[in-house]
Amino acid sequence: MATKRLEDQIRFILEIDKEKNVLRQTHISGFTRQENDAEHAWHMATMVYLLKEYANEEFDVAKAMMMALIHDVVEIDAGDAYAYDAQALATQKEKEERAAERIFGLLPDDQRDELRALFEEFEEGKTPEAKFAKAMDNFQPLLLNDYNDGGDWREHSVCKTQVENRQKRTKLGSETLWQHTQTLIEKNVQKGNIKDE
Amino acid sequence: MATKRLEDQIRFILEIDKEKNVLRQTHISGFTRQENDAEHAWHMATMVYLLKEYANEEFDVAKAMMMALIHDVVEIDAGDAYAYDAQALATQKEKEERAAERIFGLLPDDQRDELRALFEEFEEGKTPEAKFAKAMDNFQPLLLNDYNDGGDWREHSVCKTQVENRQKRTKLGSETLWQHTQTLIEKNVQKGNIKDE
Repeated sequence: MATKRLEDQIRFILEIDKEKNVLRQTHISGFTRQENDAEHAWHMATMVYLLKEYANEEFDVAKAMMMALIHDVVEIDAGDAYAYDAQALATQKEKEERAAERIFGLLPDDQRDELRALFEEFEEGKTPEAKFAKAMDNFQPLLLNDYNDGGDWREHSVCKTQVENRQKRTKLGSETLWQHTQTLIEKNVQKGNIKDE
Repeated sequence: MATKRLEDQIRFILEIDKEKNVLRQTHISGFTRQENDAEHAWHMATMVYLLKEYANEEFDVAKAMMMALIHDVVEIDAGDAYAYDAQALATQKEKEERAAERIFGLLPDDQRDELRALFEEFEEGKTPEAKFAKAMDNFQPLLLNDYNDGGDWREHSVCKTQVENRQKRTKLGSETLWQHTQTLIEKNVQKGNIKDE
């Protein structure tokens, strides 16, 4: 028989399966369909490991990977707010706090506290782990969007300032990768994929 | 300008995006559709972290998480072989070796060697990291299948011996989680979801 502890852990594991149904605005490579949160988190965590040499500061890799893996759990309840939709973002924070309470609350107390803290640390973006994980959160969709010839940017008429503002997050985690985002942004402005204003 | 090294890393990151299109036999919770490799790897890596207290041996968590994240990369070329399809499994090994050569070969040499070695270590399943990651590779679909009232087992007329044999892998990584698989298997045999033979 499983202990109550293991049962609670399994309940959480099955609950977060729902992330596979939360769609983002970003499309997967080939622009065949929207990406979901589980796929995005997988890609981000893999990138944390692969690109760790570019981090501005030393960081705990397992911790940053776990942040990446669970940072969107709250969207099961709160949904995905598009990075360039100011109206949606305004009410998103409160919804996400309630979601964190409910979903991490399924875990045994010690893991509830640990994962909730990891999530909050990611949101605040101040520690080396959070800064690098957040860099991946912004760099990953930029890479996909550039590969897809700016399909998402064009669909939403996104302008240069918006993309640049978002990628400032990347700079906090990695100067090197941020420099590369500038090249990609400029390329997509030239191609008319991002509006130059 | 990005260095050749960063360009190669990005090429690999975009190549593995294709895992989002490799479908497994397992269905996501609710049985609405099949799971893909990226989602499965995300779930597995999260479980490596969440359930690490049940491992038979101490292990390096970041290493086991990365194993989980990349263990199915080869299926981009080789496709997914169902765990209970003996014919498909016979030719799978060779296809996966060729795929590993090509896909990890996109990376800079040091990372190509590192990830290839991680992949082989996982396949061999002898180190503490590989044993626990493999346990998650088997425990994750079992949990989904149990949650979905055995839909995948029924669809493929899977019998008890097959599931038990597969879950022996779980035992090598975690005696505790393996014990729980025995309870779940028995429950599903009783319900007629798994054939008792």
